[in-house]
Amino acid sequence: MDEFSFIDNIKPNTYRQNKLIKGIGDDAAIFRMGNEDTVIAVDTFVEGVHFTKETLEPWQIGYRLMAANLSDLAAMGAAPLFYLASVVIPDELPDADVLQIFSGMKKLADVYGVDLIGGDTTSGGLLTLSLTIIGSVPVGKARLRSDARPGDLVFVTGTLGDAGAGLDLLLNNIPVNCPEAEKRKLIKRHQLPTPRVEFALKLREIGRVALNDISDGLANELNEIAASSNVLIEIDDALVPVSKALSHFPKERLDYYKYFAGEDFELVGTVAKSDFPKVEEIAAEAGVRVTEIGFVSYNKERNGKVLLRKNGVLKTLRKKGYVHRKSREKS
Amino acid sequence: MDEFSFIDNIKPNTYRQNKLIKGIGDDAAIFRMGNEDTVIAVDTFVEGVHFTKETLEPWQIGYRLMAANLSDLAAMGAAPLFYLASVVIPDELPDADVLQIFSGMKKLADVYGVDLIGGDTTSGGLLTLSLTIIGSVPVGKARLRSDARPGDLVFVTGTLGDAGAGLDLLLNNIPVNCPEAEKRKLIKRHQLPTPRVEFALKLREIGRVALNDISDGLANELNEIAASSNVLIEIDDALVPVSKALSHFPKERLDYYKYFAGEDFELVGTVAKSDFPKVEEIAAEAGVRVTEIGFVSYNKERNGKVLLRKNGVLKTLRKKGYVHRKSREKS
Repeated sequence: MDEFSFIDNIKPNTYRQNKLIKGIGDDAAIFRMGNEDTVIAVDTFVEGVHFTKETLEPWQIGYRLMAANLSDLAAMGAAPLFYLASVVIPDELPDADVLQIFSGMKKLADVYGVDLIGGDTTSGGLLTLSLTIIGSVPVGKARLRSDARPGDLVFVTGTLGDAGAGLDLLLNNIPVNCPEAEKRKLIKRHQLPTPRVEFALKLREIGRVALNDISDGLANELNEIAASSNVLIEIDDALVPVSKALSHFPKERLDYYKYFAGEDFELVGTVAKSDFPKVEEIAAEAGVRVTEIGFVSYNKERNGKVLLRKNGVLKTLRKKGYVHRKSREKS
Repeated sequence: MDEFSFIDNIKPNTYRQNKLIKGIGDDAAIFRMGNEDTVIAVDTFVEGVHFTKETLEPWQIGYRLMAANLSDLAAMGAAPLFYLASVVIPDELPDADVLQIFSGMKKLADVYGVDLIGGDTTSGGLLTLSLTIIGSVPVGKARLRSDARPGDLVFVTGTLGDAGAGLDLLLNNIPVNCPEAEKRKLIKRHQLPTPRVEFALKLREIGRVALNDISDGLANELNEIAASSNVLIEIDDALVPVSKALSHFPKERLDYYKYFAGEDFELVGTVAKSDFPKVEEIAAEAGVRVTEIGFVSYNKERNGKVLLRKNGVLKTLRKKGYVHRKSREKS
């Protein structure tokens, strides 16, 4: 398959976004955002680092990469519109697998009408996918991690740690006495995560929300919010929502799943207490679980930090789960 | 170097573009394009495919990748504003080399005040760089390859084939009896190409220009213009501008350099004859050589094709130099 028949295979027949002026087929793509702000992020997956043949099928690689990118936009309160996909394809990879990867991306993109508008294809090397995602948000309405205020409460969507536990099942064959159906659910949370796009867009009804997506672990995301907003955040371990299935896992792994493994692509946010009933209402409409797990305060000495209350003891929750140059190999 | 100190190292202290709302430091970047159209492209370089330790120093990798991306925007008539850089870094690569790559990107970005606003960093695998570039163009003023019209003349900037010849010198040690200074010039054209940004922006004075950048060889670019515009293009081999140094190279390589090697990052365009004096004037102002090499016509049977007149014979010039999944390994 040369690049031209490849592009013919993945090129959309029609574009759905009316903000698009020119899609695939020139030196660059063109869009017209009009009155809205443009939000843009890039995420890269590498074979052996973010996935292996054992953890993801080809279409799941594309699906999961798209989920990670959509999650970044959701965390900004942006509506997804376009993506560009750059792929490095090893010579030995069958064409069918490459097309499957793209169809996995498209499967999730289609849910939101997101259009593929460009990219780059290179042969050789290690299977590497780099996705640039573009969305829009009404002027000044982007959700920043610097918007947490003392008095806010802290909430998360969904349950935390499922993706980490699912990956552990895939990679390490740990002995877990838990129904197979439950195991499959956890594994699916790793392979086919659901970005919280609808919930994030409905949240626009609320004036101010600080928001991050949980890609690098709750500990990391909370520390980013605390640092950017210059506030102290305290959460209660007993309130952090986890799936029942996790009770079957080794106790010493639980904190890792909940706080450091990340990649659940849930959202963590802070909002004024008076706005939380509205958040709960929106979550119910979007079919997403939302849970209050802590609060934001001001403490001159400890602003920028995150505290975890667990078994009556208050500890500093550090980033640990952060992405340094090595950490992605583990996750 | 963990990801945080790495980001601190490459993060700009100040942003220069007033269209930027939020740069590095949240889940995504935000910009506000106002009345202008947004132009976006992505280009990926992989070690062993686009460069090796023998062909490019670390800072040259960054510089050349930036040049390739700026060239895409120039070919659209867009002013460059922002970039996102995604890098996959092998464990054994010294931190200093990584920083050099970024400083090479920045060196050329700084010429145009282009700001780094995001990216992604992954450890492991093969050195891979993916650059997303964003620019702006007044509404409806983008330069499309579909805008060639019968009666237009065809022009190119600069000289063609230098980068291909330079790469040949680096890789194949071919016997060329040519002054060392000339050889160094050719090699520099491969390592540190100059995108024709200024010329492309000044061209805005002209109402209609079809434009491509010569990244995949003149044969490929002309075929793209002919196909997109549904016209017949004819060029004259004797008119295609080449450096004097190329006369020292094996004759059988010349066509390859001129038509197929690409990566000179010059521009090829078509424009109404009456507008060409203005193009020449703009080229002079921008310090760029511009040469008329052929013309555009309408021929029901042969529209979409490119003809090359050489030694009195007219041949079809096919894409050949096109990038299929293998070809980049050669170039």
